[in-house]
Order: sequence, then C-alpha cells, then structure tokens
Amino acid sequence: METRRVTLKELASHLGLSITTVSRALAGYDDVSAATRRRVVEAARRLGYRPDPLGQRLRKGRTEAVGLVIPTPPGHFGDPFFLELAASLGESLQAHGLDLLVTACAPGPSELECYRRLVEGRRVDALVLARTRRHDERIRYLASRGVPFVCHGRSELALSFPYLDVDGEQGFLEATRHLIRLGHRRIGLINAPPELNFSRFRARGYARALEEAGIAWDDALVVTGDLTEEGGYRAARELLARPSRPTAVLCANDWMAIGAMHAAREEGMQPGEDLAVIGYDDIPVARFTHPPLTTLRQPIREAGRRLTEMLVAFMAGTPAEALQEVWVPELVVRGSDGPPRAPAADRGAAKTAMGGE
Amino acid sequence: METRRVTLKELASHLGLSITTVSRALAGYDDVSAATRRRVVEAARRLGYRPDPLGQRLRKGRTEAVGLVIPTPPGHFGDPFFLELAASLGESLQAHGLDLLVTACAPGPSELECYRRLVEGRRVDALVLARTRRHDERIRYLASRGVPFVCHGRSELALSFPYLDVDGEQGFLEATRHLIRLGHRRIGLINAPPELNFSRFRARGYARALEEAGIAWDDALVVTGDLTEEGGYRAARELLARPSRPTAVLCANDWMAIGAMHAAREEGMQPGEDLAVIGYDDIPVARFTHPPLTTLRQPIREAGRRLTEMLVAFMAGTPAEALQEVWVPELVVRGSDGPPRAPAADRGAAKTAMGGE
Repeated sequence: METRRVTLKELASHLGLSITTVSRALAGYDDVSAATRRRVVEAARRLGYRPDPLGQRLRKGRTEAVGLVIPTPPGHFGDPFFLELAASLGESLQAHGLDLLVTACAPGPSELECYRRLVEGRRVDALVLARTRRHDERIRYLASRGVPFVCHGRSELALSFPYLDVDGEQGFLEATRHLIRLGHRRIGLINAPPELNFSRFRARGYARALEEAGIAWDDALVVTGDLTEEGGYRAARELLARPSRPTAVLCANDWMAIGAMHAAREEGMQPGEDLAVIGYDDIPVARFTHPPLTTLRQPIREAGRRLTEMLVAFMAGTPAEALQEVWVPELVVRGSDGPPRAPAADRGAAKTAMGGE
Repeated sequence: METRRVTLKELASHLGLSITTVSRALAGYDDVSAATRRRVVEAARRLGYRPDPLGQRLRKGRTEAVGLVIPTPPGHFGDPFFLELAASLGESLQAHGLDLLVTACAPGPSELECYRRLVEGRRVDALVLARTRRHDERIRYLASRGVPFVCHGRSELALSFPYLDVDGEQGFLEATRHLIRLGHRRIGLINAPPELNFSRFRARGYARALEEAGIAWDDALVVTGDLTEEGGYRAARELLARPSRPTAVLCANDWMAIGAMHAAREEGMQPGEDLAVIGYDDIPVARFTHPPLTTLRQPIREAGRRLTEMLVAFMAGTPAEALQEVWVPELVVRGSDGPPRAPAADRGAAKTAMGGE
C-alpha cells in the first residue's frame, strides 16, 4: 500500500547525470546549463520526484524542532503542568513551522546527559526549560554551547537569557495576607525543594506578609514537599504532628494542597474549617475537590504561547534582555480557606510564640 | 561561547577535493584511492571534523524519531493519561536510540492534517496512536502510507496492526458485578463518547453484568461525558435530575468520577454513602480525593514500555498478528463505593423498572 518516493539518486541515474548536477539543477543554480536544467525539471515532474523534506532540512542545517525535557522520576506519574506546557508549546510552535520534541528524563545527574544528547546529536535547534533551579546546570550548559533557549522561570546564575516567570513572591505575599486577614497566625508553608528557583520567591512572599503583620518566622511551620499529592500529604502530616500545629497551610502547588487536605481529614480535621489550605497553579481538578481549592492561578497555556514567541524572537536576533517577563498570579478564593476554628486561642498561642523570639 | 563545527564543505575546500570525494573517503569507499583516504582522514582528525548527526540520519534515510499526537481541545487542559504515556514512551524509546516527537492537535478534522504533516514531512519513522476510534481515520491513513505504527487500543477496521489494549469489558463487568453484590439495582453509566473504541467495550461489560443479574438496561441511566471533571460533573447532574436517579454510577475515567462526586455533593449527597462512584484508570490523585476513589487500575507506564517493544519488533519485521495484546484492569476498592443508602426502597424501584420492560 506504500507510495514509494522516487529518490534523487534514481532520478539522476534515469537521466544519466550525477546527483550533484541534478540537485543543483533543481535548486536553479546557473552552473548547470539552462538546457540541462529544463531536462531535469521535466524528468522530475514526469517521475513524480519530490524533494525529500529530511534532505531539505539538512541543507538548511536545521532540524526545525524545539526540545523539551520532562522530568519524570521513575515510577512516578509526571506533573500535568508539563503536559499543559507541552501542549501549548506544541500548538504555538507549529504555527511557526517548528515541531516540539519531548524527551522524558529522571531528574538528577543523567538529566544533563539528556540535554547533551539532544544538542550534540543535533536533534533540536533550540530548547525550552521549565522548573529552573537556582544554580541551573542545564542553563549553564546550553549557554556554553550557544544553543538558543527560553526558560519558564529565572535562576541565580549571572547569565542573561529569555525567560517568562510568574511572580511567586507576589502570589504568596497576597495569599499569606489573605490568611492573616482571616485571623490566622500559625500559618504553615509546604514549599517546593530549595534547589528550585521559584521556592525562594514563594518563601520570600510568605516571610514578607508575616513580617508586615508582626508574626515571627517559625522554622517548625516550614517544610518541603516533592510537588506530588503524596509529598503534600506527608509534609502536612509532619506539620500537624508538631506542637506548633498550624491553623492554615500554604502549598507550593495544587497537588500538594490536595495531599494536605487528605492529611487533615485523617487527623479528623475538616479542610476549610479546621485547617485552611491554599494551593498554587489552579489545575482543572482544583474546582472539583472537596472543598473546592483556594489557589493562585497561573496561566500555563498562555505562558506556553508566550515562550514560543520569545524563542522565535530570540532566534531572530532580539536580545535576551528584551525578552524577560514576570507575570502576576491571581488569588482564586474557593472553599478550602476560612478563618481559624478558635481564633482567640490561636492568637494567644501566636503571641506566646512572638514573645519567645 | 559557541563551539563551531568544521563542515564537510570546509574540510573539502581545505583539501582541494570535492565534497563527494571527501565524504566517500571518510565512509571508506574503495573508489577513492588509499592515499587520498589517508589524507582525508588525517585532515579530518587535525581539523576536528566530526560527521554531522543530521547528515548521518539523512544518509540512513531515517529520522530516528517516533511521533505521538496528543489531542488537546482549545482552552482545555490535556489529559494526564497522555503525559504518562508520553513519559513512558520517551523513556523506553530512548533505550532504542529513538526520540519521541510530541505534537499537540485539537481533535477533529485538522487532526489528520497533523498526521499528514508528520508523515509527508518525514518528521518521524513511526507513530504511536492512543484513544483509538471505532472507525479510525488515522489508522486508515497510516496503513495506506505504509508507515509503521502501534496503537493503545483496538478499532473496528478490518486492518491488522500491532496493538495493546486494556480489557474495559472485563473491567466494567467486574465493577458492575461489585455494585450489584453491594445491593445496587439502579446503576448509572457515564461513558466516553461513542466514537472512541473503548466505550463500546465498557458498555458491553456493564450490560453483561446487568443481564446476569436480571436487571433491565435502562437508557435513562446511561449518559456520555467528555472524559474531563467538568464533563463528569455535568453528566452526573443530568443523571441525578432524572426520576430514575441511580444509587451508583460507573465512570469511564477517574476525572469524570471526580466530577460526579462533586455533582453528588451539590445535591446534598455524600459520595460513597448516598451515591457509589467508581472510576477508571487509577490516576495518582484517586488516592487523595474525598472519599478516596474506587477505580479500575490500568498500568499506563507499563503500557508505554510494552508499546515501544512492540513498535521496535514491528519495525524489525515481526508480523502485526504476533503483536496484539489485551491486558486486564484491576478493581481497586477504596472509599467511594458502598451499599445503597435505602436498599429496600431501591429494590422496589428496580422491580418496578423491570416490570415496565
């Protein structure tokens, strides 16, 4: 059933000409006589020869593909954040004639190998990086190889590159203020691993709001989770087992918030009543949890589209400095937050904690 | 910072030879004299010439990439099912030196265009298809082009191709029997759209269990949802508004089951107590919903690995008929099922319904 393609070699052999001559004739080079050119073009038409897109890409020296490496720890469902990003990037890159090449890789030492393979193996012309780290080896590597890339997120490296980030500091500042206004004083933070660049911004927003309200930072209220439901569940169980048990908890993503609500229920607490829980991202399931999740919305789909525009502009010569944006997330109040169950007692406890500083 | 690659053209011009001669010398063809070959190899080493992987792929006539098209309706978060599949495929293909090229495309008429672009544009050597349809145009197209592919799911087409499917008939047979054993007689079914091949198998399993138990099929208990939380929510609201209001509902995936639980709560019903809900897939969040979701587990990650093995075997010449497998899903009982609240009354209603047949 296969429609076989007439190759350049077959066309050349049919004409009794060299491949080079036929190829140059078809490309219209004038080092081939007009008569030969006509003969070649005519034969190509008759035999149904169409140039090989793979060969055309080679001649242009481009793969016309953009890479995205999705971190997937073994035995672990990937984060839908990346699917949404991949879907949006794929759609918008296509409009520029570019394909998205997705590779899955366990985070860790082998990850850089994955990037090397894509770059040295000439699999892609450019890359998109997400979940940037404070000292991101991947960014360092790509910059050293001169490969164009764009990041979802910033880093602490002294390198300039195009990025789009969402202002987690502003987001958590607002969310923490919201909880304080509701009467909370013992607010837990389930943050992302510290190597991820966004975790420091979120911690900073949380710290600023506490400081504004004269609430002392308490290490016993801050834990790290791995951004999964399971990680949020474990972190919340840890927080709820401590003497400083919080009345509210801020989570670095919605999956962890869903895990935290589960942990609260296991402790006989009703999320939204006995424990206020706020997430981050506003993934679709957030509207359907029980109670529906209060969260900070960041538009991943729009971000994918913008990252494509930035990358295309960067490849066309726009300087990195002109391609750096920070968007502000929006607090979406649903049912998982609320005032503390016993505000008077809580405030007393908070005062004691402050006095102890 | 970029390390520039010495091109074949530069190497040839440095040696005063034609590109063809240099290329054939490096490839070891004996139509180039031994002396010239030595000269070329020596110069290539001195100048640090490395063959271009893009060119090597061209010479082999292969892209060494496998395509996966993810259906993403506009304004719609993609289904994590595809992320999990993509992650697993990407990982296992890599072990065979193959990359996964992911393209996002809205389902519908433009989808086939997407496949055409990948195939005619020589983007990929092979494809993986998921969510097969009863009369799947994509399968028909790929078969007609002679492009190797493997499917997650079967179809009604009279074509033989490698596939891996999960036995939804067996799964829903078992889940429906489970609900009947608990005392349910009015069991709703929120199925996938009828064009998807798996929907007919699931409906068949449900129908078989009803028949075994002498319960008449009731059209008023069967609705279709779009496999999202929102779709499950709407479908469940519809079922719960009907006079035949079910005491249990079977959903074609976990996202719809989560939506159905939300709809039940809006009606003042407690999922797992006033309405038994069973999902399909066992996505990670299923363990953390309230109540935790009873569901049919299908191993997507293992499926991705097996699909890769099948595709590689198929490309190596194993006949399609030897590469067709159906796996059985496992019922995982958690907290969202349970006996009907008022079994006596329910049985009475069911008897009336049966009498009306």
